[in-house]
Amino acid sequence: MKNNSFEEISEQLKAARSILLFTHINMDGDAIGSAVAMCKVLRNMGKECYVLLEDNISDNLLFLDNGYCTKDQSIIDTPDVSMCLDCGDVGRFPKREEKFMTGKVSICVDHHATTDPFCAYNYIDPGAAATGELVYKLINTMGATIDKEIGEALFAAITTDTGNFQYSNTTKETHCIVASLYDAGIDSNYVSVQIYETVRMEKLMLKNRALGTLTMAADGKFAMAYVDQKMLAETGAKMEESEGIVSELRSIAGVQIAAFLKEDSRKVIKVSLRAKTEGDVSAISTQFNGGGHKKAAGCTMHCSLAEAMEQIKTASLENLAEYDK
Amino acid sequence: MKNNSFEEISEQLKAARSILLFTHINMDGDAIGSAVAMCKVLRNMGKECYVLLEDNISDNLLFLDNGYCTKDQSIIDTPDVSMCLDCGDVGRFPKREEKFMTGKVSICVDHHATTDPFCAYNYIDPGAAATGELVYKLINTMGATIDKEIGEALFAAITTDTGNFQYSNTTKETHCIVASLYDAGIDSNYVSVQIYETVRMEKLMLKNRALGTLTMAADGKFAMAYVDQKMLAETGAKMEESEGIVSELRSIAGVQIAAFLKEDSRKVIKVSLRAKTEGDVSAISTQFNGGGHKKAAGCTMHCSLAEAMEQIKTASLENLAEYDK
Repeated sequence: MKNNSFEEISEQLKAARSILLFTHINMDGDAIGSAVAMCKVLRNMGKECYVLLEDNISDNLLFLDNGYCTKDQSIIDTPDVSMCLDCGDVGRFPKREEKFMTGKVSICVDHHATTDPFCAYNYIDPGAAATGELVYKLINTMGATIDKEIGEALFAAITTDTGNFQYSNTTKETHCIVASLYDAGIDSNYVSVQIYETVRMEKLMLKNRALGTLTMAADGKFAMAYVDQKMLAETGAKMEESEGIVSELRSIAGVQIAAFLKEDSRKVIKVSLRAKTEGDVSAISTQFNGGGHKKAAGCTMHCSLAEAMEQIKTASLENLAEYDK
Repeated sequence: MKNNSFEEISEQLKAARSILLFTHINMDGDAIGSAVAMCKVLRNMGKECYVLLEDNISDNLLFLDNGYCTKDQSIIDTPDVSMCLDCGDVGRFPKREEKFMTGKVSICVDHHATTDPFCAYNYIDPGAAATGELVYKLINTMGATIDKEIGEALFAAITTDTGNFQYSNTTKETHCIVASLYDAGIDSNYVSVQIYETVRMEKLMLKNRALGTLTMAADGKFAMAYVDQKMLAETGAKMEESEGIVSELRSIAGVQIAAFLKEDSRKVIKVSLRAKTEGDVSAISTQFNGGGHKKAAGCTMHCSLAEAMEQIKTASLENLAEYDK
């Protein structure tokens, strides 16, 4: 399916009086940053506009919401436009799907490769590092001004989705866009401190406990660690706060495959797998009915933690052996 | 003292046949990245050029040195030009000072605020986020081409010295420069993996041990941890591998002052202090004959680890109390 142009989307937004914005559950910086930036632009144009949520914004991103977000589905009865950002699938906003459908016009702006664009107007560009980049372009097409607050929301979107400009999705255009945000007077360090320097102590302690379980194999090419329910109880951390640990395992010198196991319940083990240069972790995850990419994959196993670790280790060593041939 | 222009420096380099490059000891990414980029540009122009070192390049930066660096002081007898990069003080290359002085012309390009430029030609810009930015401008003034290798060395310089574009030294120009490096075909993710995903397991284990000593005070506004000799012996890590832990302490939500103590020997305790929004850690470090800035400071104490921790804690709580008034 062909994309609409930003001009067409701009026209629809300009013609609307009320706009309801949507993004995916488990909002990351790109989701909330893109939505907030779009919301302020539309309000600056005199539109009635809200970001409709169904779950909570994580603590470190709360600073972006200066009265833009709500969970109140009655805030706008039947919006002229329902617009979803960073989210190419209604399944990613399950409790808001019905509300989304009440919009007289639907618009989707996203950078995830989606098989089936579901809106009347779509702009989907998997080549963009972040939806924030696309929102930036749309705002410019609309001829709207990017002020400090909008610029900082877009910076938050882009810096988080590019791993602070380190991931391979980062392009020349990414840096050109961020450069121009400085013209709006953004304080990128302020944004960075809000996002990255508000780590819950419980999360840090959980990481500490998890890294204490580190085991290596295959001459240091394989690293594995886990989090179990006991650690959660003892540190007071939540399971989702174990996010990021698998990257730390992969960052160890010499490691080619990193595996991180989360004991969700006694016989439900969620496994995150990462490969560096060698190794194809999607080939491992599919053995256990999981999915993903060559360098990042995952699966859920229904066995004890010890059994899961043994099986993942065996499969990983076999995978690494393929590369040594 | 007024800076020379890049044109004047360019002329001196173009007129030279042999050039010896210098940078500071304990080379970081900006030091080695800037020096290697400059070296390749000069070799591409047919010059005899080396980067003269007196210490080892750290493992994660070794990929930048493709035959540019040497410790052999006789490699060029009396260079036409001695040029130092990212280093505004001969005290920062003590074993090479004499060699530096044999250069018929001396040039300094640096972004550290130095009180007393010591070269015949100086370009010192404390407003630049990295010396890599200045080398980029100098290369352009020289009319030289930035190829992939030079571009990746400059990317390494800039991304490390800006904390991956998160520190407040990052500017619009920083992003504009990096954007243009993509024209040279840089693989920024390759550089990033080399620099950041080669963490020694011993270093990770040391961090884990250190974070296990975390104590908090002042309702979570003060965080303190330490590394002692026993941890080094047990993990096999080196003391310098504790670098970065103090930032992790500061990143804890609510923490305003973070203190990290390193037991160098039984009665020599090196203290790193960081402040987030509140707190002035230079006021703490000066109490113990140390120095630094408001948000990053340090001192060396001659007492036991336990005594040092007690004194630092007391001084920090007093400092925080000032902000609560």
